[in-house]
Amino acid sequence: MKNRSLVSINDYSTDNISEILRRTELFEKKPVQKILDGKVVATLFFEPSTRTRLSFESAVNKLGGKVIGFTDSSSSSVSKGESLKDTIKTVANYCDLIVMRHPLEGSAKYASELSKVPIINAGDGANQHPTQTLLDMYSIIKTQGTLQNLNIFLVGDLKYGRTVHSLLMAMSRYNPVFNFISHEKLRIPDEYKMYLNNIGIKYYEHSEFEKIQYADILYMTRVQKERFSDPMEYEKTKDTYILKNDMLNDTKDNLRILHPLPRVTEVDNDVDENRKAYYFDQALNGVFTRQAIISSILDIKPENDTN
Amino acid sequence: MKNRSLVSINDYSTDNISEILRRTELFEKKPVQKILDGKVVATLFFEPSTRTRLSFESAVNKLGGKVIGFTDSSSSSVSKGESLKDTIKTVANYCDLIVMRHPLEGSAKYASELSKVPIINAGDGANQHPTQTLLDMYSIIKTQGTLQNLNIFLVGDLKYGRTVHSLLMAMSRYNPVFNFISHEKLRIPDEYKMYLNNIGIKYYEHSEFEKIQYADILYMTRVQKERFSDPMEYEKTKDTYILKNDMLNDTKDNLRILHPLPRVTEVDNDVDENRKAYYFDQALNGVFTRQAIISSILDIKPENDTN
Amino acid sequence: MKNRSLVSINDYSTDNISEILRRTELFEKKPVQKILDGKVVATLFFEPSTRTRLSFESAVNKLGGKVIGFTDSSSSSVSKGESLKDTIKTVANYCDLIVMRHPLEGSAKYASELSKVPIINAGDGANQHPTQTLLDMYSIIKTQGTLQNLNIFLVGDLKYGRTVHSLLMAMSRYNPVFNFISHEKLRIPDEYKMYLNNIGIKYYEHSEFEKIQYADILYMTRVQKERFSDPMEYEKTKDTYILKNDMLNDTKDNLRILHPLPRVTEVDNDVDENRKAYYFDQALNGVFTRQAIISSILDIKPENDTN
Repeated sequence: MKNRSLVSINDYSTDNISEILRRTELFEKKPVQKILDGKVVATLFFEPSTRTRLSFESAVNKLGGKVIGFTDSSSSSVSKGESLKDTIKTVANYCDLIVMRHPLEGSAKYASELSKVPIINAGDGANQHPTQTLLDMYSIIKTQGTLQNLNIFLVGDLKYGRTVHSLLMAMSRYNPVFNFISHEKLRIPDEYKMYLNNIGIKYYEHSEFEKIQYADILYMTRVQKERFSDPMEYEKTKDTYILKNDMLNDTKDNLRILHPLPRVTEVDNDVDENRKAYYFDQALNGVFTRQAIISSILDIKPENDTN
Repeated sequence: MKNRSLVSINDYSTDNISEILRRTELFEKKPVQKILDGKVVATLFFEPSTRTRLSFESAVNKLGGKVIGFTDSSSSSVSKGESLKDTIKTVANYCDLIVMRHPLEGSAKYASELSKVPIINAGDGANQHPTQTLLDMYSIIKTQGTLQNLNIFLVGDLKYGRTVHSLLMAMSRYNPVFNFISHEKLRIPDEYKMYLNNIGIKYYEHSEFEKIQYADILYMTRVQKERFSDPMEYEKTKDTYILKNDMLNDTKDNLRILHPLPRVTEVDNDVDENRKAYYFDQALNGVFTRQAIISSILDIKPENDTN
Repeated sequence: MKNRSLVSINDYSTDNISEILRRTELFEKKPVQKILDGKVVATLFFEPSTRTRLSFESAVNKLGGKVIGFTDSSSSSVSKGESLKDTIKTVANYCDLIVMRHPLEGSAKYASELSKVPIINAGDGANQHPTQTLLDMYSIIKTQGTLQNLNIFLVGDLKYGRTVHSLLMAMSRYNPVFNFISHEKLRIPDEYKMYLNNIGIKYYEHSEFEKIQYADILYMTRVQKERFSDPMEYEKTKDTYILKNDMLNDTKDNLRILHPLPRVTEVDNDVDENRKAYYFDQALNGVFTRQAIISSILDIKPENDTN
């Protein structure tokens, strides 16, 4: 993967994914190692984010690298009318790798074509968020022991949720059964259903929380206000699909609840104490996964890699 | 103090305070040492601050640690409706220690109950700001040679000023005499006067600058606009208690003027050149004090500690 | 230059400039070296900037130093009414060097008189931006082989553009011919023309793109909206002086197009692929130039300096 940008999870072959998951485990065992000494990573966040940005910065810092960047576009030259092209072509001179989040779909792809250093897409609008997908996959294999043949429930905003779309595409390689739970206005887009039909992956659509006793993974997502043009539509739908602790009574022992976070109200606080709640551990996995991705792209071997 | 959060100065025994002051002196002698190598500190500022944040970041950086964080809540996931609980539980995965400032009283205590890494309270509303108190105490012992039996004047916003309340509680252990100078609307709250009465500490209230010829420490504070609901009330009071250089003529030789900063108009610029003005040196002491606090909480010994 | 602030390019003698250019070449050969180990640099940006701030932060990080700071004044104590004096006198306690950008002309000079650590001016209003000038000069000598006897065209906002004024003053020492191309409302101020007259440097004024076939350096600048009180005047002038690729057909082989960036529309995107376009390489030179300036001011020798 040397010097290759990570724009979409589809950029990675199944072998690439396996390599990232293997490295993630190495970094989980030894998160502090000085392999990025002398390297500078730029984090360009044209949209706000705590989790993703801090997770990347923690990953880089624990590996001995340095971070520069901006946390929103108002404190950058973008506010002076600079184009994305010029920002990328300039910042590429200051660093060895760019991590970017941008509100526009396709912006990461565009940046990767212009930049002389690799780009990691940390979210481009409703499109892709591949490092989230890889940390989700690491959380799945770590808790389930396998990626194969799982019963995966995706809940919430299935229409606009980029993490849902990326995870669906990636997990489709491992013979899952999908269950989609959402309001009718937030259903999984037809293109994804056609894709699953074409490759012979089974899926079921539900408009209520049902059949979760069969789930191995319950992947909850936030209904994001910023995706709605009509605020009333947001208010009406946001409380419809709230997971509560007593709904987990008859679920499988190996069930784990994932959430890309931030959460608003869709997972009740009383679920947090349930041992099946895994979302905060999932966030920790994000640091190791990003260490794996960065080291792969920069072609630097983990110290504890005996391969 | 290993792995213990610092939420309030009352969390620390007199022995704990002595240990911090002892360590502070060690770091003043040798501020650059690599004892935090591989450690990541998160600075979560839900409210703006130059001084406190940069002071912490300087402290960590000089000790070889790394800093991640945000400088205001608008560029964080809080703007997406995330709860403080979730922010803390997530960020605790990314770091070894969290330094937080938050507008809500009690928020640091709440965070310390949720976090798996220690929390340092860098100010929670009008409540507590314990690292400021410890640097104030280091400034007092360094300039007076002792913490015992001092005549301490507290001036300005004694009602809402969290630095005043914390300093009062901490210094009460060392048999001081307090003099409170403030507008009647900004008087020290009754609970603090009752506390002093109960433990037998003498205090006097003044509505004007008087008796300062007896002071060992003159602790000036800003009348903070953001604490007032009525802007007119702020405008009327802010100029009432301005310290000017000629007021220092008959003061004691050992008098030192402290201020937690930022200052607005309450200390005239002509005071800055007076050798009794100590507030900028006090800010420097803040770096060493924070190095002492962080190293104590993480249970890491200073290199030059022969104990 | 030990411990000396860099406020204006006029602070540097011709020997000082030669030393910076010599060091810049050393850092271009070896940009990663640990000579700032244990040092902290504060970047205080009271105005937004991507390029200059990230360029400085990259320079410091590659030399093993640490960076603290703020990216706009709203997240600093300035929003609490603190004076520039107090901000500088406080932050000087936290670092070894301050890099500042401020909207007010003269602010960097003022800060340098108050600070106990050196100040590097990263732009003070329409006044000076000396590190930009030094990286411009490095770009000139690197592409032309000399600073002497060049035909330099300055285009765009010659009235308010601080980079233009600084470059004009600095290059005047090397016997150039200047050509000024601008709208009549944005002409080079009379004081600069008088200065050139006094020292016997030739210059020509043009209101259109003409004679550029004689240019060695074509220095393009943005017409900055924020310098205009009347937005209509900005709209009328901004498109008047746009450089397009076909205008470069008959230009000299050694011609290089420089731009301090950010660009808006004044250099057409089709110019970017022309090998005479040098502005993105110029941005890279900025990292090395700032490493040279910082190391000179802190009196630390580059590792690969055999002098």
